[in-house]
Amino acid sequence: MPPLRVTIWNEYLHELEHDVVAAIYPDGIHGALRGALLEHHPDATVRTATLRESDHGLSTDLLADTDVMLWWGHKAHDEVDDAWAERVQQAVLAGMGLIVLHSGHHSKPFKRLMGTNCSLRWREADEKERLWNLQPSHPILEGIPEHFELAHEEMYGERFDIPEPDETLMVSWFQGGDVFRSLCTWRRGHGRVVYFRPGHETYPTYFDGHVRRIVANAADWSRRRLSRSTREAPQVEALEHVPNPTKEHI
Amino acid sequence: MPPLRVTIWNEYLHELEHDVVAAIYPDGIHGALRGALLEHHPDATVRTATLRESDHGLSTDLLADTDVMLWWGHKAHDEVDDAWAERVQQAVLAGMGLIVLHSGHHSKPFKRLMGTNCSLRWREADEKERLWNLQPSHPILEGIPEHFELAHEEMYGERFDIPEPDETLMVSWFQGGDVFRSLCTWRRGHGRVVYFRPGHETYPTYFDGHVRRIVANAADWSRRRLSRSTREAPQVEALEHVPNPTKEHI
Amino acid sequence: MPPLRVTIWNEYLHELEHDVVAAIYPDGIHGALRGALLEHHPDATVRTATLRESDHGLSTDLLADTDVMLWWGHKAHDEVDDAWAERVQQAVLAGMGLIVLHSGHHSKPFKRLMGTNCSLRWREADEKERLWNLQPSHPILEGIPEHFELAHEEMYGERFDIPEPDETLMVSWFQGGDVFRSLCTWRRGHGRVVYFRPGHETYPTYFDGHVRRIVANAADWSRRRLSRSTREAPQVEALEHVPNPTKEHI
Amino acid sequence: MPPLRVTIWNEYLHELEHDVVAAIYPDGIHGALRGALLEHHPDATVRTATLRESDHGLSTDLLADTDVMLWWGHKAHDEVDDAWAERVQQAVLAGMGLIVLHSGHHSKPFKRLMGTNCSLRWREADEKERLWNLQPSHPILEGIPEHFELAHEEMYGERFDIPEPDETLMVSWFQGGDVFRSLCTWRRGHGRVVYFRPGHETYPTYFDGHVRRIVANAADWSRRRLSRSTREAPQVEALEHVPNPTKEHI
Repeated sequence: MPPLRVTIWNEYLHELEHDVVAAIYPDGIHGALRGALLEHHPDATVRTATLRESDHGLSTDLLADTDVMLWWGHKAHDEVDDAWAERVQQAVLAGMGLIVLHSGHHSKPFKRLMGTNCSLRWREADEKERLWNLQPSHPILEGIPEHFELAHEEMYGERFDIPEPDETLMVSWFQGGDVFRSLCTWRRGHGRVVYFRPGHETYPTYFDGHVRRIVANAADWSRRRLSRSTREAPQVEALEHVPNPTKEHI
Repeated sequence: MPPLRVTIWNEYLHELEHDVVAAIYPDGIHGALRGALLEHHPDATVRTATLRESDHGLSTDLLADTDVMLWWGHKAHDEVDDAWAERVQQAVLAGMGLIVLHSGHHSKPFKRLMGTNCSLRWREADEKERLWNLQPSHPILEGIPEHFELAHEEMYGERFDIPEPDETLMVSWFQGGDVFRSLCTWRRGHGRVVYFRPGHETYPTYFDGHVRRIVANAADWSRRRLSRSTREAPQVEALEHVPNPTKEHI
Repeated sequence: MPPLRVTIWNEYLHELEHDVVAAIYPDGIHGALRGALLEHHPDATVRTATLRESDHGLSTDLLADTDVMLWWGHKAHDEVDDAWAERVQQAVLAGMGLIVLHSGHHSKPFKRLMGTNCSLRWREADEKERLWNLQPSHPILEGIPEHFELAHEEMYGERFDIPEPDETLMVSWFQGGDVFRSLCTWRRGHGRVVYFRPGHETYPTYFDGHVRRIVANAADWSRRRLSRSTREAPQVEALEHVPNPTKEHI
Repeated sequence: MPPLRVTIWNEYLHELEHDVVAAIYPDGIHGALRGALLEHHPDATVRTATLRESDHGLSTDLLADTDVMLWWGHKAHDEVDDAWAERVQQAVLAGMGLIVLHSGHHSKPFKRLMGTNCSLRWREADEKERLWNLQPSHPILEGIPEHFELAHEEMYGERFDIPEPDETLMVSWFQGGDVFRSLCTWRRGHGRVVYFRPGHETYPTYFDGHVRRIVANAADWSRRRLSRSTREAPQVEALEHVPNPTKEHI
């Protein structure tokens, strides 16, 4: 296969507004994610885009040339223009992969693709998170042990208001008494959608080796698999007609 | 259980504009569907609403008092106000059932709930449709034989651009060479969504005994099951806190 | 619907061999489960059967007259005769519901219906179990809150080697750091299979109000829905033949 | 990835007993399938095994060294030794892919993995089969058009008694009025199972370009993805213990 073409979209506000976050992610969360992808896919083309760039850093050409997009957003989901949210949704339906990270559960593209409110419970208490591997043979979990831990993370708890996932790959345990479906996949149109829970901005989660491996594996797994020529599925008259197809259309 | 409360929403344009349709459905498609529901659920409260009434015949009180809504639309999906499409979506997520019929596959509420374009192939050629029963033990198919036929129907063919259904209950065979997943279910939020294919306006499909039985069964199966008090699932702090929950929120 | 006909199958060895268990379940685990069913379905016919009765207390007539069977077994799965395991499997495929409880995950009927080894991790450490409700609108979870706790239970942890459930209804959190898909459903043939995790013999779990409600709800949900006349699905020549169906069969 | 290691298992009776079949498959059905695999995976190691060889041509070493197995059987399923059926099942649960072809729907390994009877309707009438592509972006359907036809095939019709597939990739239309889920996938344990319908012995189906492409794609998709070291998932005490894990084990 040709090298992956990845676009990382990041809200990029916390890093600019809070010293604690800037200290952890001096190149932005998108910078850390870019490093993770290149570590595992050194030939990949990795581009980044952020909320307050013109058109949020996006263009229709960029979407068409992107095999998989990562999406991190948190406190400014409403600033994303509806027209761009719809274009991202349509790019997924046409075959682009989409990996939604952490607080991106409330992003416009994810909610549009799921059809639900995607709400959940949460708590900030520096809790230990232990992620359990339910499908060690899945390509996204290649190289991941039976479980791994993040010493400190924000808690997300069930009920997570999502459609039943096509695949539930990891479930998280939290110190304070909660559980969460942390790694899930869905097919939508010609595209694949992955949700991966960890990644609160005040913790160095995207420098964890297991997290980086999962993000890189998910990018490969969800990459676009339809060439442009077969990507269209317009609503047209079908190919074969019965013996007497003519009739009055009313 | 208390008697069902059903609201039938119908576009109600073909019946007024075309003599052929008016002759088949003198009381409107909603009138025929109303008859089907009362035939099988004589104690049900069945209300109807149509596109060109004020607010499309809908109100927030009506949605809150509806256990299951039927939706038939075809050529004027765009006339449905986005705000009402969203309210219907939210009513489903809060527990209302939704049965989407025939050309309602392109309706705004269905597309919002599915997250895909819901496109398909179609042909008007007076074809025979034979519907095969894949799960005779499912409550929606109670009383339905291994297969049944509609002598003349509009053809809908795959690829139907929908998320993988939770349950694929019937698959249609068409004379001209096409197949279609004709009866599918999905859970979305606290609600259940059913799609049922037959029902082109130029055929007396909603007077067919099997079709009527399926619509009535689906209404019972997808009815609201959460009382109002438990219907809310707001995003709030979780109940149990770890030993030292206080921290700086940034 | 006519009153439920339930058969509770219990291994019934721990209760006879250990004073601790006998003190908790003086009428056997099947006796406690019988009480739970009658509490919520007072009109039900509830029969019991145990391992060391003749034919394990089973008969083909009993299976044919059972709408839903509960199965609790632990240390003597191998004593169940293969022929009876197969008859129970076939009864499910013909429409009987099956609710597999706790250590029944390794029972022969469950493993035959799942096709996998159904293994898991476990630990006996008097841990707190907290069960989270993922689908409060599901009939099996009617009356169950967002979560509930069992003060002491045996731990079961992932990876639980099962096919992806049709529905994952509850996920358990354990004090010691594990998670588990605690309440799952699958359709197999014309029957419905439910797995429900709690119920170690050294704890009074089947006297817990929430556990009893779930067992009773599951019995109603998984009950047989096909009458005997429509229960057969033999492999036969199809009904309709193409114009020239005769050919040399080789 | 290293080159694929494929084992093709064929009953290999029709080819020896019937001149019509021998004329179509002079090297056996396994020979035709071998050609299809090598056409698309020239570096693959492709071995074959047949029913009436010693141990059906199988060994535990062969299973351990097989990434994906193809299985074609028809009239002698009962001759397959139960112990070998179980070893094949266990090899799948440990990570081997299994592609079950045509009348293999009634084979022992497939029925063990599905847990159902896997029955269906059938008719031999030289019918046209048209296979519709429901997921053109799926790796198994890479290079396959929206639909393709086989001029003459045996008919298989619904209800196909299988668990709801994880993915329903193709649905067949038959001239005589039937439909069938023709290409389905399931995950079982660490392995992936594919069922692909076409391939009656009296037709040259396995020389069709689309069929060969699908078989070869499916082999790649379902290949073993766990190395031997991570393939074990024994039931053991979990890693982390709560503060006071000691208790009386009864």
